[in-house]
Amino acid sequence: MAELPISSFTVPRLKDLPKDVRARIKLVQQKTGFVPNVFLVLARRPDEFRAFFAYYDALITRESGLSKAEKEMIVVATSAVNACTYCVVAHGALLRIFSGDPLLGDQVAINHRTADLSLRQRAMLDAAVKLAREPQRFGEADVLTLLDHDFTREDVWDIGAITALFALSNRMAHLSAMRPNDEFYAMGRTPQKKRA
Amino acid sequence: MAELPISSFTVPRLKDLPKDVRARIKLVQQKTGFVPNVFLVLARRPDEFRAFFAYYDALITRESGLSKAEKEMIVVATSAVNACTYCVVAHGALLRIFSGDPLLGDQVAINHRTADLSLRQRAMLDAAVKLAREPQRFGEADVLTLLDHDFTREDVWDIGAITALFALSNRMAHLSAMRPNDEFYAMGRTPQKKRA
Amino acid sequence: MAELPISSFTVPRLKDLPKDVRARIKLVQQKTGFVPNVFLVLARRPDEFRAFFAYYDALITRESGLSKAEKEMIVVATSAVNACTYCVVAHGALLRIFSGDPLLGDQVAINHRTADLSLRQRAMLDAAVKLAREPQRFGEADVLTLLDHDFTREDVWDIGAITALFALSNRMAHLSAMRPNDEFYAMGRTPQKKRA
Amino acid sequence: MAELPISSFTVPRLKDLPKDVRARIKLVQQKTGFVPNVFLVLARRPDEFRAFFAYYDALITRESGLSKAEKEMIVVATSAVNACTYCVVAHGALLRIFSGDPLLGDQVAINHRTADLSLRQRAMLDAAVKLAREPQRFGEADVLTLLDHDFTREDVWDIGAITALFALSNRMAHLSAMRPNDEFYAMGRTPQKKRA
Amino acid sequence: MAELPISSFTVPRLKDLPKDVRARIKLVQQKTGFVPNVFLVLARRPDEFRAFFAYYDALITRESGLSKAEKEMIVVATSAVNACTYCVVAHGALLRIFSGDPLLGDQVAINHRTADLSLRQRAMLDAAVKLAREPQRFGEADVLTLLDHDFTREDVWDIGAITALFALSNRMAHLSAMRPNDEFYAMGRTPQKKRA
Amino acid sequence: MAELPISSFTVPRLKDLPKDVRARIKLVQQKTGFVPNVFLVLARRPDEFRAFFAYYDALITRESGLSKAEKEMIVVATSAVNACTYCVVAHGALLRIFSGDPLLGDQVAINHRTADLSLRQRAMLDAAVKLAREPQRFGEADVLTLLDHDFTREDVWDIGAITALFALSNRMAHLSAMRPNDEFYAMGRTPQKKRA
Repeated sequence: MAELPISSFTVPRLKDLPKDVRARIKLVQQKTGFVPNVFLVLARRPDEFRAFFAYYDALITRESGLSKAEKEMIVVATSAVNACTYCVVAHGALLRIFSGDPLLGDQVAINHRTADLSLRQRAMLDAAVKLAREPQRFGEADVLTLLDHDFTREDVWDIGAITALFALSNRMAHLSAMRPNDEFYAMGRTPQKKRA
Repeated sequence: MAELPISSFTVPRLKDLPKDVRARIKLVQQKTGFVPNVFLVLARRPDEFRAFFAYYDALITRESGLSKAEKEMIVVATSAVNACTYCVVAHGALLRIFSGDPLLGDQVAINHRTADLSLRQRAMLDAAVKLAREPQRFGEADVLTLLDHDFTREDVWDIGAITALFALSNRMAHLSAMRPNDEFYAMGRTPQKKRA
Repeated sequence: MAELPISSFTVPRLKDLPKDVRARIKLVQQKTGFVPNVFLVLARRPDEFRAFFAYYDALITRESGLSKAEKEMIVVATSAVNACTYCVVAHGALLRIFSGDPLLGDQVAINHRTADLSLRQRAMLDAAVKLAREPQRFGEADVLTLLDHDFTREDVWDIGAITALFALSNRMAHLSAMRPNDEFYAMGRTPQKKRA
Repeated sequence: MAELPISSFTVPRLKDLPKDVRARIKLVQQKTGFVPNVFLVLARRPDEFRAFFAYYDALITRESGLSKAEKEMIVVATSAVNACTYCVVAHGALLRIFSGDPLLGDQVAINHRTADLSLRQRAMLDAAVKLAREPQRFGEADVLTLLDHDFTREDVWDIGAITALFALSNRMAHLSAMRPNDEFYAMGRTPQKKRA
Repeated sequence: MAELPISSFTVPRLKDLPKDVRARIKLVQQKTGFVPNVFLVLARRPDEFRAFFAYYDALITRESGLSKAEKEMIVVATSAVNACTYCVVAHGALLRIFSGDPLLGDQVAINHRTADLSLRQRAMLDAAVKLAREPQRFGEADVLTLLDHDFTREDVWDIGAITALFALSNRMAHLSAMRPNDEFYAMGRTPQKKRA
Repeated sequence: MAELPISSFTVPRLKDLPKDVRARIKLVQQKTGFVPNVFLVLARRPDEFRAFFAYYDALITRESGLSKAEKEMIVVATSAVNACTYCVVAHGALLRIFSGDPLLGDQVAINHRTADLSLRQRAMLDAAVKLAREPQRFGEADVLTLLDHDFTREDVWDIGAITALFALSNRMAHLSAMRPNDEFYAMGRTPQKKRA
């Protein structure tokens, strides 16, 4: 299946890319063992590539009040309601890895309401999914519900901003028919000591 | 009405902001005559601020196959179906200015299907609105329809990516209860020679 | 743009119209300074014209517990969720004029939930929009919510009946591709002492 | 069951009504054998009563290119998608009577797509139901489809205007919790020579 | 109208059917006076026929905490939101017969929220309709609401399982364009002493 | 996690079950290596249990024009749009096993439109998902589209009937908060020679 295209748009050759873009791609390859296709698909527009990963680092890589697993829950739940194959597969893998729970990626992708989550995490995903799918109905009442579940205002911003970033990301994946790497499907499927 | 809050989150004071963020804000103030609230609302997270405006510059400021007015049509039409007050008001003003048509901002915001547009522009907005609201149904067939209307593949990427960026932007505005500056409502309401 | 058709159906000449219809049209022309297109578009069926404006007078022209601005809020909010260009543009102008607030027309059209309204007015528009879009879910519980906001039973009838009349009006506008007069877009955009 | 209220609003006594309203009610009583509740429920606002029935006469009572049965099909199909008990029950009876087909009222109410209709009538109801439920998507393409089925432009206006009038009527029934007379349910249930 | 096809699939001749299937059909014919078309339409696949009617007997024929009329209310309300002509017509007849109320079949089919039901029955149908149309949102909160209305856990299972069986049944009817027997429309339209 | 309840309803002990039900459960345990929870959750109502698995055998176990993998595609795609955790997880495993493709279960669950399928299989799932979610719009036109893709009438019945059976099954799973066995998540994740 390796020969299937990873995008319906042209994908640049690594050697034709600006140095910083290439460096970023090499870094992720060293860390992950392969180059996630999103890097190659977005690289055809280096300025957009840089902006996207700067945003990603600011929200996902940066430490914050949300755990790594919780951030991935938001990505998986909101990408699932948008039926975004790339984001659900790639971030489902990260959710399994960061939570140490090999079942959680699929559970959150299929129906976050029945996943093995705390009530607080369920409230977090209810808010994120509402902002993802019905932004016009999201308002201060939803923020207050999150504060009631002991999220801080900064946490609320993170929940909303991660949802917003993947609203963008899902649409880029749909636009470009972005294909997830085969490697993602099997990652993190062996149970680990939970960290979530 | 000047005293109404522009965000439900804290808004930093200009003097507390990093130099580059402050510089960007001063630049837009000189150009526009006031500081659009989105700059102040997002500035509380400088890294996200930088990423957002880098993305904005890459897609909106940059010259491309789409005219300035066409880009604003996409922003207004997709923000309208998300009921995003900030983006519709601010970019409705820009659409009036760039098109020279004082009616077009309201027309596209209310119903792009009945606006005074070419069939090609109507097809562009049909695709953008579909990607905005039903990304799970967007696919290669929609891309082909755009190519049939003489958009290039690069134009298609622009249409999709602008839609994606404002999917993010709309959700940040809903999250923060972002209020548009009063100035936007009246801008561009005098007819100009059309440039669209 | 004056040459664009105002309807996809034939529009009668004034001189061919029955005397009372012509008189009504002349009256509005004197008062407004131009003939709103809805008068010309509906005049091709004089009996329907008479019934429509009799209904309009009974609900909109007549004094009642709702202010003139509140009636226009209902028209604008419900017409906006139906994406009715004619009604949003024409009654957005009236809302600006009657409220003395040059921003309110656009705010209510884009998202009545974030407009500068009292909680009571917000409740009024929540009920109206529900009756407009999901009549099958409207029931006594919605009436009770309005009574809790100090609306009388007669006010509730007005809110519902205005919504119902514009459910009709919006559909006539969509049916006939009714075009708003250019004049409406700019009316009431200078701030006035508020009367709302 | 006769004691169940016919409206959640006050219902005037016949003797307190203006003479012309009372006359209209007596006329329908003579013709039908009972007073349909809609007359009593709307009579509390005589001006609105007069406008409503003037509109009704102009579209329903008046001879036109559509048969009596076809007009009732439109009323039943569009009222059914709005779950309007009064209009479906009352006009289902009229549809049975005017078509001479005791099955057609229920068929059109449940699913007009599977009712025993001609393709032309099916197209008529497809357009009416679209205008009733998704007016924002109704446009010239839908008009052209009707013309292709040999409807005239005047027929199209009738189809749209009847749909529009019952968009109003359905909402008045939901607003007032209007109860259909028990008599309607059983009317027209004996097969007649078809007239549709 | 007797000559209209009862299915878009082939319908077997009685004499070609397995003995037990034929026996079941004869039994219903003796009891009802005619063979409901669902028996003939499903008989082309005897194993599925047997499974369907075994399920039907287990849930509908079996005595339980729900009355016969209440079971038919569930069937009619959930089949109506699926616009299933066969099930609404056939079970509307049964609802009229079992409730002794000639109006209830139509009322529940058009809008169960305005039907002449107890609050408890209304809650039962709210839950059933939610499970029928939005199963992904149905959860323990809905079960608790039913328990609050004095339904037992076994009643809740019955409500859900009847809804589930007719989710299947509705789709078989849509798949096969199953036509209800003309006889059903008129059954039970004479008032009886209520048994509901 | 083994201690988490597999249903919100009581689950019978094996030894309390009728002999035939127990035998069926032992059979699946021998074949699969564990007892899928659906057997235990449904066993509390032996007659419904028997009917359900008789239906299952008639449609799924029975040989037919659809391959085993194609049947599971239908189950996974339709259960996914209903957000049914049990059915997606359990039948996702079966889809991986029967197709020999470790990626296909997740692909079909997330978005069947972007899965690695033939156009014919894509058309099959388009029809199934339409019947699952919008049965009221399913009709002969959809059947014809399937025939155009070289499905026989019997295949069409299978596609529709499997969709219908899992419309039932999904609702039973939502009703009972049915939990998938942990074992399913990891099954079939090693690539096999494709049989699909």
